[in-house]
Amino acid sequence: MCQDSTPSVTSRKTTSSAQRKNLPRHSVSPREPPHAEKAGEGSKSEDRSKSAAAKNVERARSARSGDARPIGVFDSGIGGLTVVSALRKLLPNESICYLGDTARVPYGGKSASTVQRYSLEIASILLEMNAKTIVVACNTASALALPVLEERLPITVTGVIAPGARAAVAATRNGHIGVIGTRATIKSGAYERAIAELNPDVRVVARACPLLVPLIEEGWLESGITDQILMQYLEPLLDDGVDTLVLGCTHYPLLRPAIGRLLGDAVTLVDSAENCAGAVQQLLAREDLVAPSNNTGALDVALTDPPDSFLGVAHDALQLEIGEVQLRSVR
Amino acid sequence: MCQDSTPSVTSRKTTSSAQRKNLPRHSVSPREPPHAEKAGEGSKSEDRSKSAAAKNVERARSARSGDARPIGVFDSGIGGLTVVSALRKLLPNESICYLGDTARVPYGGKSASTVQRYSLEIASILLEMNAKTIVVACNTASALALPVLEERLPITVTGVIAPGARAAVAATRNGHIGVIGTRATIKSGAYERAIAELNPDVRVVARACPLLVPLIEEGWLESGITDQILMQYLEPLLDDGVDTLVLGCTHYPLLRPAIGRLLGDAVTLVDSAENCAGAVQQLLAREDLVAPSNNTGALDVALTDPPDSFLGVAHDALQLEIGEVQLRSVR
Repeated sequence: MCQDSTPSVTSRKTTSSAQRKNLPRHSVSPREPPHAEKAGEGSKSEDRSKSAAAKNVERARSARSGDARPIGVFDSGIGGLTVVSALRKLLPNESICYLGDTARVPYGGKSASTVQRYSLEIASILLEMNAKTIVVACNTASALALPVLEERLPITVTGVIAPGARAAVAATRNGHIGVIGTRATIKSGAYERAIAELNPDVRVVARACPLLVPLIEEGWLESGITDQILMQYLEPLLDDGVDTLVLGCTHYPLLRPAIGRLLGDAVTLVDSAENCAGAVQQLLAREDLVAPSNNTGALDVALTDPPDSFLGVAHDALQLEIGEVQLRSVR
Repeated sequence: MCQDSTPSVTSRKTTSSAQRKNLPRHSVSPREPPHAEKAGEGSKSEDRSKSAAAKNVERARSARSGDARPIGVFDSGIGGLTVVSALRKLLPNESICYLGDTARVPYGGKSASTVQRYSLEIASILLEMNAKTIVVACNTASALALPVLEERLPITVTGVIAPGARAAVAATRNGHIGVIGTRATIKSGAYERAIAELNPDVRVVARACPLLVPLIEEGWLESGITDQILMQYLEPLLDDGVDTLVLGCTHYPLLRPAIGRLLGDAVTLVDSAENCAGAVQQLLAREDLVAPSNNTGALDVALTDPPDSFLGVAHDALQLEIGEVQLRSVR
């Protein structure tokens, strides 16, 4: 398939991304700032063996000069670009490597073990691309694979569930929150658990909306049919009295205007993409990973299968500057 | 994910399917009847090296006793069960092994090279399961991977495109055929090519309908919203004057009642599942692969990821007897 939107596509399967982008090879070691004087590439065990004092020195250096390595962001497909859009608005100096697993999209109807396997594979590619931290810009992968990623990866991982849950608990006035997402996200119960940990008295009603992603990918963002499908999905939540609705899929912010128009002011919409970007901002500051203030903040987009027309939809709706799209192979 | 429909699920990843089903191990050699007196398992090259005379003797034997090996059927997911349903109605004595690649469903938006890679992997599993012939019950895989499968596999392969094209050319009175399918099927131009080979004077207008599969999988087979979406997709084809419409996706026969109601008698619907089953019937007779008349005609369903609710939708709509669903791992 060829792409029919603005960004161009290039296939590359052998050269490492760090080589392609001329990223500093001495900064591959996770959480190690690019200026660190080290000849080889650090491993997780080497990193762990460092003394706390040495780490503190490095962090102090990093805080002065910043960490120019990119933030690695992944999603099952193109939808996670809503998180990239939110990150670029909030953190314009940060470089971002985005990897969409379009060869195996969508994750939303797949089992936990399959989503975990795919997520680990995609995250390992972002590690090769020298990511300083990883953002799981996919609610399904956040719901099903975050603990495995946190356990296995040598760098910090931020999902979209916890930030969305925190924002929803802060927003609700009547203690009754609605959540919409893919079948897998809703079935996982991840939002219910995250909200209950913050406030066990809040009541959550969740609903899978499997038609919304294909509607968005078809580009029917303002269609009367989309409004009808939205009402079919949302009416039971409204009847149930929710005053806050979590858009629990990174595609859904593209329907925010339509959903807002249907629900009016009575319901607060919680955009998991925006809240995730806020969580990443806090993490970078906390971990001394903030980019130098003179960093240009490049965006590199890679996919595991050539993009279809939805990249054009996202490109237009999000007004992202997407350059050449790289292709990365998966198994 | 657990399944919420009738069939039960069992995971198995190591035992070979032939062992599980007690299929005759001496019949693994492609196109070789199960009663053939041969100690080892034949390879493609061994098969090719046989003299034409020896093959004729085998075929004569086969015609007497029949070939009890199963027909291997695969699809990207559950939709190909419409082909299984048509095969069971037409060929009740034939055993069928169905393999749905639900871990990577859908194929419909993916590139040709990815669909070819997945199709070869899935077909090789069906070979391990001792299939005597393979049916590609997926329009996308038929459109993009059939030549590769025919080249690489040691047994015959039947797709859904050519039988559908033949039926459409036979049905049209005004020489104007419409085709609906997934993005990848329509983009491939496979139906246009197949129809042009049969009759270059026939005019074909094709349209991708990416929302229909998720609508069907949601079970909204008789919803007013489905009717509206169908009209949005079909009206341009009607305005263009088609008198025959090919349902170019194995999911679509589940919408046949809704489409028939909307289009009335003016348009002949061509069901690629039914026509594919007819082509398989002819192939089995031609290649001496027909099952013995006393064969029980078992149906084994295997998936690469646990089924979701759509298996229940298909089960109810097609009234198929699906026993225990096996799980097969893919990369």
